[in-house]
Amino acid sequence: MTRSSGRFIIAVDAMGGDYAPDEVIKGAVEASRDSEIEVVLVGPEETLHKKLSQYKGADTSIRCVNASEYIQEGEPPALVLRQKRDASILVATKMVKKGEADAVVSAGPTGAAVAAALMVLGMVEGVERPAFGGTPVGITRDSILLDCGGNVDCKPEHLLSFAVIGTVYVKKLMGIENPTVALLSVGSEEGKGNALVKESYPLFRDSGLNFIGNAEGNDIISGKANVIVCDGFTGNVLLKFCEGFGSSINQWLRAKLAGKLPHDERDEICRELFSITNTADMIGGVPLLGVNGNAVVMHGRSRAPLFTSAINCARDMVRSGFVESLNTELIQTRRQLKNVVD
Amino acid sequence: MTRSSGRFIIAVDAMGGDYAPDEVIKGAVEASRDSEIEVVLVGPEETLHKKLSQYKGADTSIRCVNASEYIQEGEPPALVLRQKRDASILVATKMVKKGEADAVVSAGPTGAAVAAALMVLGMVEGVERPAFGGTPVGITRDSILLDCGGNVDCKPEHLLSFAVIGTVYVKKLMGIENPTVALLSVGSEEGKGNALVKESYPLFRDSGLNFIGNAEGNDIISGKANVIVCDGFTGNVLLKFCEGFGSSINQWLRAKLAGKLPHDERDEICRELFSITNTADMIGGVPLLGVNGNAVVMHGRSRAPLFTSAINCARDMVRSGFVESLNTELIQTRRQLKNVVD
Repeated sequence: MTRSSGRFIIAVDAMGGDYAPDEVIKGAVEASRDSEIEVVLVGPEETLHKKLSQYKGADTSIRCVNASEYIQEGEPPALVLRQKRDASILVATKMVKKGEADAVVSAGPTGAAVAAALMVLGMVEGVERPAFGGTPVGITRDSILLDCGGNVDCKPEHLLSFAVIGTVYVKKLMGIENPTVALLSVGSEEGKGNALVKESYPLFRDSGLNFIGNAEGNDIISGKANVIVCDGFTGNVLLKFCEGFGSSINQWLRAKLAGKLPHDERDEICRELFSITNTADMIGGVPLLGVNGNAVVMHGRSRAPLFTSAINCARDMVRSGFVESLNTELIQTRRQLKNVVD
Repeated sequence: MTRSSGRFIIAVDAMGGDYAPDEVIKGAVEASRDSEIEVVLVGPEETLHKKLSQYKGADTSIRCVNASEYIQEGEPPALVLRQKRDASILVATKMVKKGEADAVVSAGPTGAAVAAALMVLGMVEGVERPAFGGTPVGITRDSILLDCGGNVDCKPEHLLSFAVIGTVYVKKLMGIENPTVALLSVGSEEGKGNALVKESYPLFRDSGLNFIGNAEGNDIISGKANVIVCDGFTGNVLLKFCEGFGSSINQWLRAKLAGKLPHDERDEICRELFSITNTADMIGGVPLLGVNGNAVVMHGRSRAPLFTSAINCARDMVRSGFVESLNTELIQTRRQLKNVVD
């Protein structure tokens, strides 16, 4: 979407996250230094204005939109969204639906952010629930693994929708022409895998996607395919395993290098090791892939720099035209599969 | 099983593996220096005797048992085991069945080794297919993850049998009194997980095992439980991911430390990093857990030192009385669950 202002309007849930609204505002002020970005903070207007005024000389492009309520961790999302009609996450998401904003960013409870996106924006046709794309290891830069999130019980059609989502994502956000796609399995040959993978294989083969077969666990890092598809249970376990692994290896390495390298050199190596194994923590925001609109969710414990980077992530999503392309590509895949069947 | 000789008799498939029989024999000679171990090499007797004679002064406790055939990589296991009745893996496994050996070790095709174990030794009652227990990261020493192998499509009863297997393994092989058990899932709270995990939860809770609830991906490394249970698809993907990850991080670290540390210090750190992330490669052999007899399978590409360590692994399994305890413990768990139902 392009605006007459030439700016991408990002609605930010100012009351979402453990450090809201202070760290949200700080991160938003930083993000709004980008001339392409116009931030709209959604929350109690008076408070927000007062806090914003502390940033003397800050970019004045930040606007505030009032929302008198917000959702707390632990409240049942679906229910509370119906009760708190003026919750900041709901107001911000509705701005996207009404075309008043191009994307919404929230560090509020993930369940609530996802529920708001589903309720207000809905899903792209052919996708059932939002998928999370992850890059478990930062060494592999041109590859994503999905789903790493919400879809813990999948059917073959779900996996196929992840493949299409991943293909569009890698094309649009990573600039890769004809992304390769693989199914995560326990062996590289066709016929290896659990029932889900075996049933999905022919669907992938006939989809018109650039399917190259199965990938194994180690192929996630070697980057055998640009898009590696798995159910959300496996993906989530892998992503968290990688985070835990990175932290442990980090401690181990810190101890190993103690007394062998100057402090600053050791710290730099360890910091880099952390960042390549905890990619989600570094990025800040994760787009809800498959939602019919741009929504970026964040960890509740995020601080200002992560809000800046999540707002940038939202900008990139909007600029790339991801949602529009996904709609087109899903129609094309369905048509292709129909042709094979007919 | 104890022998009048006081030795554990380990039947080794001398023709299994990419470097058979030379590396097998070399590894067996080394292993037989242990006064508790008596190795029986199974293969073409004449060839084996000739090759053994090169080890002058080697321990004479090594015996040879003739087998005129062997199974090659790529041959369909079930079929070929019916055709090649004198295949080394079959002859060696039958020795265990007949009580002529306490355990069998093979680096032949895994499918054939597993099929021979199933066909000749059978499974312990209540276990359907052999499970593989893995320690993905060597930092966590008192914990295993299973199944990492053959059971890619699981029912709740399968997961429960892995929990019992893991409990007995950790008790008997790691000397831990009352091992804690967790279900691998996408959230720590009850009710989080895919359908399989959710259905398994009450079964685990009522099993009489020391069940502490769900574990997440990062808990595998932090060692939240001594036994972490998952389906064989997830476990296999995790184990291979970890191996690939370890290799990549190793290369990354090697480059980072170049010119900063003396060569030997760098090599030592990198070697250690490899060994803690490629635990299967370091151990050499993996016992087929749930088989009604001791069978240890190995990577086809194993060299002599891994044969030594796999033979030692077989000795430890026999000495621990794992199979006998597993039979007892499974009966107990069934009784416990029956009481809950009644």
